Amino acid sequence: MKILIKDCYLCDLLRDSGVTTGDVAVEGNRLLKVGGEGELPLGWKPERVIDGKDHLCLPGLINCHTHAAMTLLRSYADDLPLMHWLEKKIWPMEARLTGDDVYWGTLLAIVEMIESGTTTFSDMYFFTDRVAEAVEVSGVRACLSRGLIGIGDSAEQGLEESRELLEKWQGAADGRISIWLGPHAPYTCPPDFLDKVLTLAQDYRAGIHVHVAETKDEIEQIAREYGKTPVAYLSERGVFRFPVLAAHCVYLTEEDIETLAAAGAAVAHNPESNMKLASGIAPIPELLAAGVTVGIGTDGASSNNNLDMFEEMRTAALLHKVNKGDPQVLPASQVLSMATRDGARALRLDDLGLLQPGYKADLILVNLNEAHLHPRHNPVAHMVYSARGGDVETVIIDGRIVMEGRKILTIDKERVLAEVEERARRLLS
Amino acid sequence: MKILIKDCYLCDLLRDSGVTTGDVAVEGNRLLKVGGEGELPLGWKPERVIDGKDHLCLPGLINCHTHAAMTLLRSYADDLPLMHWLEKKIWPMEARLTGDDVYWGTLLAIVEMIESGTTTFSDMYFFTDRVAEAVEVSGVRACLSRGLIGIGDSAEQGLEESRELLEKWQGAADGRISIWLGPHAPYTCPPDFLDKVLTLAQDYRAGIHVHVAETKDEIEQIAREYGKTPVAYLSERGVFRFPVLAAHCVYLTEEDIETLAAAGAAVAHNPESNMKLASGIAPIPELLAAGVTVGIGTDGASSNNNLDMFEEMRTAALLHKVNKGDPQVLPASQVLSMATRDGARALRLDDLGLLQPGYKADLILVNLNEAHLHPRHNPVAHMVYSARGGDVETVIIDGRIVMEGRKILTIDKERVLAEVEERARRLLS
Ligand SMILES: [Zn+2]
Ligand SMILES: [Zn+2]
Repeated sequence: MKILIKDCYLCDLLRDSGVTTGDVAVEGNRLLKVGGEGELPLGWKPERVIDGKDHLCLPGLINCHTHAAMTLLRSYADDLPLMHWLEKKIWPMEARLTGDDVYWGTLLAIVEMIESGTTTFSDMYFFTDRVAEAVEVSGVRACLSRGLIGIGDSAEQGLEESRELLEKWQGAADGRISIWLGPHAPYTCPPDFLDKVLTLAQDYRAGIHVHVAETKDEIEQIAREYGKTPVAYLSERGVFRFPVLAAHCVYLTEEDIETLAAAGAAVAHNPESNMKLASGIAPIPELLAAGVTVGIGTDGASSNNNLDMFEEMRTAALLHKVNKGDPQVLPASQVLSMATRDGARALRLDDLGLLQPGYKADLILVNLNEAHLHPRHNPVAHMVYSARGGDVETVIIDGRIVMEGRKILTIDKERVLAEVEERARRLLS
Repeated sequence: MKILIKDCYLCDLLRDSGVTTGDVAVEGNRLLKVGGEGELPLGWKPERVIDGKDHLCLPGLINCHTHAAMTLLRSYADDLPLMHWLEKKIWPMEARLTGDDVYWGTLLAIVEMIESGTTTFSDMYFFTDRVAEAVEVSGVRACLSRGLIGIGDSAEQGLEESRELLEKWQGAADGRISIWLGPHAPYTCPPDFLDKVLTLAQDYRAGIHVHVAETKDEIEQIAREYGKTPVAYLSERGVFRFPVLAAHCVYLTEEDIETLAAAGAAVAHNPESNMKLASGIAPIPELLAAGVTVGIGTDGASSNNNLDMFEEMRTAALLHKVNKGDPQVLPASQVLSMATRDGARALRLDDLGLLQPGYKADLILVNLNEAHLHPRHNPVAHMVYSARGGDVETVIIDGRIVMEGRKILTIDKERVLAEVEERARRLLS
């Protein structure tokens, strides 16, 4: 489809050169023209014209780390000590989830993400086949991994399911789906199991999505078992020979940071989850200084409790300022870049996350006609420090309009809400 | 007017006993019946019936510390060192503000606050006469103080304006307006000036709204000048013989906390402003443990950058968990109480902040029919950890419907946005 967005505000995050106004042209699933950049072929006629007046056009936001179907457990258990929360609440409930539950829970997450401007997410969960179905029907873009636990009975099954996912879903849904391998964490993946994961990664040229150094307990456990840090443990197994997306990275040594930087590994920063579970504060300024690509994630809805990337941007921007005692740390444009361009790089989606001709047409229109976005001194700062997910008016993913006037066009939202409510009630009974 | 809200969700924050459903009846500016509590007189007939289905009814949120008209400077200057930000950006711009600017900037703030569920705010600024006008016409409730600087030419003028405000506006707008005295901060109010402020407080039985111990610089300056802490300095002058609302309180000694507790002083906690300016993290768990009443505030829009109390609740709940390394600190129900009942107590508005028969009819209806508020395991946790200001559907203040279906009924929002945009442009030119 050929879409022309007329007269919207545009900001160039590459140059941080302020905000201009102009048109955006989409053809197929690509950006053809953005403001002054790119050319429209002679006689080019849009099939759809969208009035962009008083709207800021941004690349779709990229949620680098979540467990989408955990929306089913949103606000089911809060304000508890971590192990009590996991062992008494989350794990018993997760053990009861069916494939259908995961399908509907993922759809709920996708509705919420699209409604708050997220166009791509990176997921780790189970029943991933059903997660992929939800991604396919909803029109969103996603990197999916089957969470792999190397201890216990299901270790082999997880590997087998991952292989099936790679066979069936890699590049599916017009390329909107990528499959990653998801070894859960250093403390749940012993060396011989990690080796099997890497063999699979080698066979399919897949990336590795893994929780790393999330809590002090993990640091202590890995030190006890292997006499090293989680990053060093993974490094020694050869994990960093593959594209790595490391979630959390709260506790890192200087050497760990060097390892990540040297390997070109990317980090998914989840500030709200780390705050809510009292895990700690990741050394993001240090990672950025070392040249590590850092994206932003929400983590699952049971430790956040929403999937709103606007909120997550703001929390990241504020948290590191107070943590470093420096109001200049993580300025607005850098945080917006982390949630768009850097997120795309973290997911190794090279033609995504920028409004540039030739890039994938994943974009959002944010309605600036709101009290909390006035006056318009600096729309980029507005996005990070004042905007809410609910300000997103229109969402285009892969050249397709998936939300317009805040109405989701690809999913029956009422049905999703009803299904989820019913399933939540059954899970509690 | 007699209003009946049918069939909404209700939570009793006093008893933390979960969520029920029921009706809420309003007569005049008071709550008559809330769920099972209170009686409707025989033959009582509402003039307006509001369908509360799928909505959570809450007391209106209370923003305990802001500078409303600073919305004019929203996103005008971010990510800067504090003194540079103040001296090169904020103060020169504020020096150019006219009374009309403050009027329109305050109206913008009020639109934003009502739209995000805030029904009462505590303000400190100048041209306070015009702030009061904006409060009067908009239907909101407010405690207003003229910021008083005891150094320089305008010291006496500030006192005189405060006296005029007390004469003209105390209890005005059907009691929606209260006037407080606003000595800006220990470092801008020398002893003899503070004495004059207290004489005025004595004459008019007024409360004292003051910034206290916001930054390390302030601690050092007051130590240099007076050899004591800011709280001790204020205490020695006799400030705590009056009702005190102390904003920030980031740097407190144990003795300071005892002083505040013993005096019955209240604290306005502004987590996002303290984070954005890298001021520090206030010892809120310690203050609460000592029995100090703590409300929540957004501070001005130039250091936040919005006035959304839902966001501020969430940030408070998350920040202290990670700061203390304890996920049980500041649970959801306590934070919601800080933003409602405790906020009312901090502002010495005794019949406000609870849904109880006889209390002032300041309430909001939050639309739970949103993806990010599903499933409904725990609507109270939803309010703190997942809800957004934009989820507020209906706002009633002092028994009057001021917003319905997200449309503000008391203010011409389009005109406010246009006025503010034009004034912002003039200020920059
Ligand atoms: Zn995770
Ligand atoms: Zn202030």
